[in-house]
Amino acid sequence: MKKNILIVLCVLLSLRNFSQGTDAAVVKKIVDETMTNGTAYANLEKLCKQVGPRLSGSSNHFKAVQLTKTMLKEIGVDTVYLQQCMVPHWVRGNKEQGEILSNGGKKFQLHLTALGNSEGTVPAGISAPVLEVKNMSELANLGEPVIKGRIVFFNFKMNPAYIETFTAYGESGISRVRGPSMAAKYGAIGAIVRSLASNLDDYPHTGVTVYNDSFPKIPAVAISTNDAEYLSRELMKKNVSKVWFKTNCKMLPDVNAYNVIGEIKGSAYPDEIITVGGHLDSWDLAEGANDDGSGVVQSMEVLRTFNALGIKPKRTIRAVLFANEENGGRGSDAYLEEAKTKNEKHIFALESDAGGFTPRGFSLDMTDAQRNKIMEWKDLFYPYGVYNFSNGGGGSDIGPLKNIGAALAGLRPDSQRYFDIHHAATDVFENVSERELKLGAANMAALVYLVSEYGM
Amino acid sequence: MKKNILIVLCVLLSLRNFSQGTDAAVVKKIVDETMTNGTAYANLEKLCKQVGPRLSGSSNHFKAVQLTKTMLKEIGVDTVYLQQCMVPHWVRGNKEQGEILSNGGKKFQLHLTALGNSEGTVPAGISAPVLEVKNMSELANLGEPVIKGRIVFFNFKMNPAYIETFTAYGESGISRVRGPSMAAKYGAIGAIVRSLASNLDDYPHTGVTVYNDSFPKIPAVAISTNDAEYLSRELMKKNVSKVWFKTNCKMLPDVNAYNVIGEIKGSAYPDEIITVGGHLDSWDLAEGANDDGSGVVQSMEVLRTFNALGIKPKRTIRAVLFANEENGGRGSDAYLEEAKTKNEKHIFALESDAGGFTPRGFSLDMTDAQRNKIMEWKDLFYPYGVYNFSNGGGGSDIGPLKNIGAALAGLRPDSQRYFDIHHAATDVFENVSERELKLGAANMAALVYLVSEYGM
Repeated sequence: MKKNILIVLCVLLSLRNFSQGTDAAVVKKIVDETMTNGTAYANLEKLCKQVGPRLSGSSNHFKAVQLTKTMLKEIGVDTVYLQQCMVPHWVRGNKEQGEILSNGGKKFQLHLTALGNSEGTVPAGISAPVLEVKNMSELANLGEPVIKGRIVFFNFKMNPAYIETFTAYGESGISRVRGPSMAAKYGAIGAIVRSLASNLDDYPHTGVTVYNDSFPKIPAVAISTNDAEYLSRELMKKNVSKVWFKTNCKMLPDVNAYNVIGEIKGSAYPDEIITVGGHLDSWDLAEGANDDGSGVVQSMEVLRTFNALGIKPKRTIRAVLFANEENGGRGSDAYLEEAKTKNEKHIFALESDAGGFTPRGFSLDMTDAQRNKIMEWKDLFYPYGVYNFSNGGGGSDIGPLKNIGAALAGLRPDSQRYFDIHHAATDVFENVSERELKLGAANMAALVYLVSEYGM
Repeated sequence: MKKNILIVLCVLLSLRNFSQGTDAAVVKKIVDETMTNGTAYANLEKLCKQVGPRLSGSSNHFKAVQLTKTMLKEIGVDTVYLQQCMVPHWVRGNKEQGEILSNGGKKFQLHLTALGNSEGTVPAGISAPVLEVKNMSELANLGEPVIKGRIVFFNFKMNPAYIETFTAYGESGISRVRGPSMAAKYGAIGAIVRSLASNLDDYPHTGVTVYNDSFPKIPAVAISTNDAEYLSRELMKKNVSKVWFKTNCKMLPDVNAYNVIGEIKGSAYPDEIITVGGHLDSWDLAEGANDDGSGVVQSMEVLRTFNALGIKPKRTIRAVLFANEENGGRGSDAYLEEAKTKNEKHIFALESDAGGFTPRGFSLDMTDAQRNKIMEWKDLFYPYGVYNFSNGGGGSDIGPLKNIGAALAGLRPDSQRYFDIHHAATDVFENVSERELKLGAANMAALVYLVSEYGM
């Protein structure tokens, strides 16, 4: 009996080794193909330089839809189609300006930018004394008597000691996302937010603010980190009389936009759907090269690599370029709704929305059994720089697919450089490394391949 | 008896856990300090912008010696001193130029640069038909009858499928290091080398070539990867009549240079020396920000962090800024010689000479027992991005210390971007990320701390 068990065990082990060996060979082919012949970098250059900024609702969004639709058709997948949705239509308007007015009458020009979805000032701009707060308790402690009629300056520095910069972003991000309405609650007439950036420079970083309908929608801007340091020092020295700023942004009625979808039909289980995606929209200050042009071209590259290698996936693979991650999430909503309407079976979704940097891991949001399955493949990724399989969300566009049973994963690239350029004018093609971008795509393709072979 | 063993085991395990817990706390302090208050990035800016290129033998090398000596003094270490050595004195001379002359009489200006330590052409330059080879067998197969009087074009592309770019550099590097003399062996009058670069652009990458004294020292240049692609295509189309190039470089007699050394004396075992180093010299085309300004400022940062935290190391720690890695290794020789003369006990040396990129691991060159000791600390590094402890050389400057018993290690940062800028005009301060640089320094300080506590 013992002997029989041993034989069975040996056979099972050898089968597993054989399978791992085959998988390792396929994964190597996938990586070789992506690194050697991959088009992710060339496609990113086109998206950044031929289209550029592409906030959903803008005319550039439609250009990006056409361009990526063409790219997917050129890859030669089974189906390419658009999925309509209504998106917020926020426009920045004309020149944004701001100044610190010193007690001595000196003016200091601020590097500022309106926060996404924020309301503009009156045409002459707004001007008021400034109160600096470094956390939300300080704001609450000052209260209405002090804050009323003033401009609140949220000087929330990203903590440099956090190794994962997203942790620092998460902690300080409340200043941008909730700060303006929290200031309005106490009667502030405007909000200035220190850019959510991990470095010191002159570029302001935009990003969405979410107004609380219970309070006035006050104008809100981000200033560069250098300017935040300067303003803070001048306030400390009691040198500041007022700050003036002017913005012309506004929210218009919703307009049409599109998710762009390319699909390879599964050969054995066509009804089981794997989604791999990024978001096509990007903030209007730059080219959205890292956020999220990278995720867009990497997702398309997964399909290209399968086709180039003649891999017929057992399950259906869809590259989805979501329409509206930055200021609404409506592309994500539309994708979920259609999936529900058609009663689709979504088994797995993978998102790349953390920049085109060198990959380190995947975050996993799934059952323990599913996690254990993926952990069995862990060693296959080690030669390609991916070693860290941690618990964590997959990403905001695929997040809702959890409601219909999909296991979720997110590509986790190295995060050290992301918040130097995130949502700023510096998020341009030149700040993406070809090899880093491709290596991310290669690891994504490998994970999608394994799920397409073995299910979830 | 069994019970006693169990108790002893429990006590030992709890001691180990306690120690790991304490170590983890110190490592966290080290990382926090480096990421929050570290001066590595500010010092790198000074080294790059106040000094710039600093090939040993140049006047800038002396400026760099003075600047870093001052920096070490400002850190407040126990001793700062210079260690003299004689170094090669190679000078590039005036404007380098080159052209492809097409059969139709058209001229194409090449982006080229003389290889380090190479001899210049005659004043009018050299001109000859060109033979392209893609590996050394092709060269040997052509042989003297074909090669004599020609210029050999070594078009050795770095293999993009290698994930560790140093592997590709090692494989293709023979074209630059040995190619010119191998071509001279068969009578070539000049050599053109495709830049050892992983990307396609217009910047030529220099680097040392090593002449074999048995053959004529023929002039040798690197051309940009874009130009290499162009030249190869034109040769394929049989459009090329000749290539002409002119260089004015030459080797002068040896001159003085210095290793810069800062030292904190060990509190318990002052005779046991730990070296942490990088090289101060850099190629003359750029600022040597990654190669190896990064290693220089990271090594100094290790000492600064110890001092800032009030850590008194049990063993002596030396930051050594080596004088002459790029074209001679004389700084390394001098350091070894003095160590031998003084009969110093070198237990461990750590080098950073692979760029200031996000750290991934350490390469280890030591006995199995020493490796096992370091592997016990592995988990302490995981939260800070370092997970890969592999076998491999420590680095060329510390390499000789193996002869006197030192265990060696090298910082292994992510290598994807290194050969885009290595030895080219693009190796500038702006291409170093503050957080990546500091995170490398933090992990180096942590490893040095553990060795200083527990020995090797």
